[in-house]
Amino acid sequence: MKQMKDSIIPPITTPIVDGEISQRHLKSNIEKWNKTRLGGYLVLGSTGEAPLLSYEEKIRVIAAAREATPPGKVLVAGTGEESTRKTIELTRKAAELGAEVALVGNPHYFKAQLTMDCLYDHYVALADASPIPVIPYNSPGFTGINMTPDLIGRLSRHPNVVGVKDGTGNVVQLAGFRRLGGPDFLIFSGNAPSFLAALFVGISGGMMPITNLYPDLWVDLLEHYRTGALEDARRLEARLLPMTATVMKYGVGGMKVGLDILGFYGGSPLMPLKAPQPEAVEEIRTAMEKVAA
Amino acid sequence: MKQMKDSIIPPITTPIVDGEISQRHLKSNIEKWNKTRLGGYLVLGSTGEAPLLSYEEKIRVIAAAREATPPGKVLVAGTGEESTRKTIELTRKAAELGAEVALVGNPHYFKAQLTMDCLYDHYVALADASPIPVIPYNSPGFTGINMTPDLIGRLSRHPNVVGVKDGTGNVVQLAGFRRLGGPDFLIFSGNAPSFLAALFVGISGGMMPITNLYPDLWVDLLEHYRTGALEDARRLEARLLPMTATVMKYGVGGMKVGLDILGFYGGSPLMPLKAPQPEAVEEIRTAMEKVAA
Amino acid sequence: MKQMKDSIIPPITTPIVDGEISQRHLKSNIEKWNKTRLGGYLVLGSTGEAPLLSYEEKIRVIAAAREATPPGKVLVAGTGEESTRKTIELTRKAAELGAEVALVGNPHYFKAQLTMDCLYDHYVALADASPIPVIPYNSPGFTGINMTPDLIGRLSRHPNVVGVKDGTGNVVQLAGFRRLGGPDFLIFSGNAPSFLAALFVGISGGMMPITNLYPDLWVDLLEHYRTGALEDARRLEARLLPMTATVMKYGVGGMKVGLDILGFYGGSPLMPLKAPQPEAVEEIRTAMEKVAA
Amino acid sequence: MKQMKDSIIPPITTPIVDGEISQRHLKSNIEKWNKTRLGGYLVLGSTGEAPLLSYEEKIRVIAAAREATPPGKVLVAGTGEESTRKTIELTRKAAELGAEVALVGNPHYFKAQLTMDCLYDHYVALADASPIPVIPYNSPGFTGINMTPDLIGRLSRHPNVVGVKDGTGNVVQLAGFRRLGGPDFLIFSGNAPSFLAALFVGISGGMMPITNLYPDLWVDLLEHYRTGALEDARRLEARLLPMTATVMKYGVGGMKVGLDILGFYGGSPLMPLKAPQPEAVEEIRTAMEKVAA
Repeated sequence: MKQMKDSIIPPITTPIVDGEISQRHLKSNIEKWNKTRLGGYLVLGSTGEAPLLSYEEKIRVIAAAREATPPGKVLVAGTGEESTRKTIELTRKAAELGAEVALVGNPHYFKAQLTMDCLYDHYVALADASPIPVIPYNSPGFTGINMTPDLIGRLSRHPNVVGVKDGTGNVVQLAGFRRLGGPDFLIFSGNAPSFLAALFVGISGGMMPITNLYPDLWVDLLEHYRTGALEDARRLEARLLPMTATVMKYGVGGMKVGLDILGFYGGSPLMPLKAPQPEAVEEIRTAMEKVAA
Repeated sequence: MKQMKDSIIPPITTPIVDGEISQRHLKSNIEKWNKTRLGGYLVLGSTGEAPLLSYEEKIRVIAAAREATPPGKVLVAGTGEESTRKTIELTRKAAELGAEVALVGNPHYFKAQLTMDCLYDHYVALADASPIPVIPYNSPGFTGINMTPDLIGRLSRHPNVVGVKDGTGNVVQLAGFRRLGGPDFLIFSGNAPSFLAALFVGISGGMMPITNLYPDLWVDLLEHYRTGALEDARRLEARLLPMTATVMKYGVGGMKVGLDILGFYGGSPLMPLKAPQPEAVEEIRTAMEKVAA
Repeated sequence: MKQMKDSIIPPITTPIVDGEISQRHLKSNIEKWNKTRLGGYLVLGSTGEAPLLSYEEKIRVIAAAREATPPGKVLVAGTGEESTRKTIELTRKAAELGAEVALVGNPHYFKAQLTMDCLYDHYVALADASPIPVIPYNSPGFTGINMTPDLIGRLSRHPNVVGVKDGTGNVVQLAGFRRLGGPDFLIFSGNAPSFLAALFVGISGGMMPITNLYPDLWVDLLEHYRTGALEDARRLEARLLPMTATVMKYGVGGMKVGLDILGFYGGSPLMPLKAPQPEAVEEIRTAMEKVAA
Repeated sequence: MKQMKDSIIPPITTPIVDGEISQRHLKSNIEKWNKTRLGGYLVLGSTGEAPLLSYEEKIRVIAAAREATPPGKVLVAGTGEESTRKTIELTRKAAELGAEVALVGNPHYFKAQLTMDCLYDHYVALADASPIPVIPYNSPGFTGINMTPDLIGRLSRHPNVVGVKDGTGNVVQLAGFRRLGGPDFLIFSGNAPSFLAALFVGISGGMMPITNLYPDLWVDLLEHYRTGALEDARRLEARLLPMTATVMKYGVGGMKVGLDILGFYGGSPLMPLKAPQPEAVEEIRTAMEKVAA
């Protein structure tokens, strides 16, 4: 998975038309993104509304993304389920459909019982069974469980666990992942406001929801940092973060509004999520105009 | 749903044999419970490991429970999913299979976006579509979201929302549900240590996991309270609670150990949950012997 | 301290005039309360703004309260400080000034280091040194630390620790205090919405801030419960709780507004606390009128 | 306060001998530190056990520190109290005794009432009244309240509020303080594990408890960063952080053990804090030997 290093891979949204997944719109969105310098696509993340989709719908999303994703870009699929068995089953299916990497959110419903040892066994069982590399996804804001650097360090020794995605924005934790995971372990952040500081402590790249919008600017930000153009990086960050705060306030629905504004297909999220109200749409549009300016 | 008033309805475990749901063991467990004074059964609750089961497995659980549950006992099925659409689909299927009431846990993954209004719309859409009465399940320990008395009060005005289950053990909140839901609204507690005090503030009955074990003693506790035999109620509570604390410490796995000890089929929970270690099994056995003595 | 059983002892406010403690107004308030059936007074609680007062000011409050409190009512003084030594010093001074019981909030600033064992040693050192009986005050909402039933049970074995005040409203915890503290241990609740349910699980009486207002109605509530007049108790509770919620929303400032309305001296709290805005004053007045009606 | 920029200013411990503050040991510790490149000293911080000291003891600490602190080093005194009036009083006294800057922790006991506006008014009243510059100290781990970047930005416009100390280690928040406080606003971190990353997002210097130990190595770390010697900075950080984690685990007591090991006067903290057990002392010694090696 060398090609994932130094890349931005957005967790892309899942287009819904009349309450149903639209493979057609998903493919046309990806085709637009293919013209950018994104490193690939993550389907079925939180931003892809994966928890709201059935097994069959998930399969259709992966299949459509596979068709539209060209060889130069990596296709990552979110395959985490609450049970180990269902996670293995979906991961194998995703691999069969052409996903190259599995991004795997933690089981968390039974959080009082799920010790770090339970999670370790879960991920090892999965990594043993998976035909494709596995990347655990640590997102305590969604799950209520934090994967410790110690756990990630232990998991990094499994040859099929190639990295971690972290949504906390906690740079001390990210530095711990780097120290315990070693120099080649892939570390992706899902938190945009801390992304530049996270690069400073050694992460590999970004999987932030907001990179659905203006993806090449985020690639620029990463490249500025890598080439030592720090002032350019900070200026660009200052331009991107206010818009990021505005869009993220409205969750998946806000992201979809942003896509509509940029000429992609956004649409509405599935219930119980709601589409932003008209004033929110205007707020998002205004914030985006400031980036484009 | 008058018959549910003043009843104990345990969220029963789902027997697993060789990694697969065993309809046979589920039916034989229910047949044993049929000889007790339980008011019915709740399948596919948290204790039933519902989040770890596929749609097909859930259907098999309901079908088996339907076969074994006699007319005098009510069959409740857990049908909450993250999306409104999937919740409606499973609820309709459960009704078709003979479930008489749907107990519906909150969507919670996107908790930052899920306002009380989102939950209201979710439950109203469900109650409109469901052929059977709906009971929302408030369990912030699992979901990270608390349903306020105000929300429950609003939902209680829908003719197909007949009650609420609450797992918090917060008697002030339970009193609020009673005040805002009215005298006929069904209020079940899922929290055993506060059960007796919850009866004092006006709940209708119990859906506590621990009532898988010694169910008639819990029915006795409820009846002692209802008949004004407070001293008997307190003595019985004092006998049951230490055992409850010990078993609950080990979650679903602990409950299954307890069932094995009592001659029911317990077995192991599904991964990533773990069966308790041998010392824990002994601790549970010792705590249970004190109840039986 | 037998006389404290079955009593309501309000944590009274500290009158401030032109930025200074007014002993005169404190005494005149107490003289008004002397005509009620209150069991005594707690000065220098949170409601008394103790954390905002200097050592000298605290002494003046106790001295004034001592003058105004007649023999039939117990005078309790809040004496908890962050250090054990300062707590002992203030407790001894309070005793010298005529306080009969010390109510002692936990040290909590260094909460990461303050294990249950640290608190145990703190309270034992205090109880050994104090000339008057000691009552620990458990208020995690203020302190961020919860005193477990196990800790309270251990402390109850010290002859000079005669009870506990608890602010959580958690009836399971209160029941644990009773079980581990024994039948004669004094247990006071500081949480009004759960007060009636707390009586059901065995507490001794009330030290709720709201009992500054309409104290005899709270005494009635307690007596209704003790005499088995449950329906009267519930009706009275239903009359008192909406007003309670409104006043408590505005903290000490709200309580002082309520006192002004009833003809006591309320006044403003000390900075950084603020007096409620005019609309809040009207809201409080309206809620109080419904109680009086 | 230009001289505070780019400096390390440790919150120093308060030596206790036989239960009393020892001005002599405080001065001899400071005299040892005077030979280092520390920028100054912060007395009466949390590490100085300020919440455990009386007003008179605080005065003695400031006086002794003033005597021992030479002109080239800045003397900062912690002066935060729960009431605005007491905070102003102590700040004026500290200034009179020669403290050059006041570091002011938030009032927090009444946290439910203390809105950002209350804190704003508190700090403005203080800054208006204080003869010396004021630096608010944001430490939600101690106080349970987080001062938002918006609040700090507003306060930065007061000419007598010259900076902020932040204990969170949250780099996004620190970046927000820089953005809203402007380029000359002083921003100190109290969190060692994130210190290097905090420099990257623009802070001015460090006020970390751990800099009581090996202060010149922390000055080196800061200088490496400022001179662009990033590899040296990272290597040094990797050497310092494991020791930091070990010492901080034991709080003030751990810091005092470390001082004893280095030939300073450490001693024990005041009750209810405890001195570390012998095994902890050995653990600290071992961790420190690895830094020295």
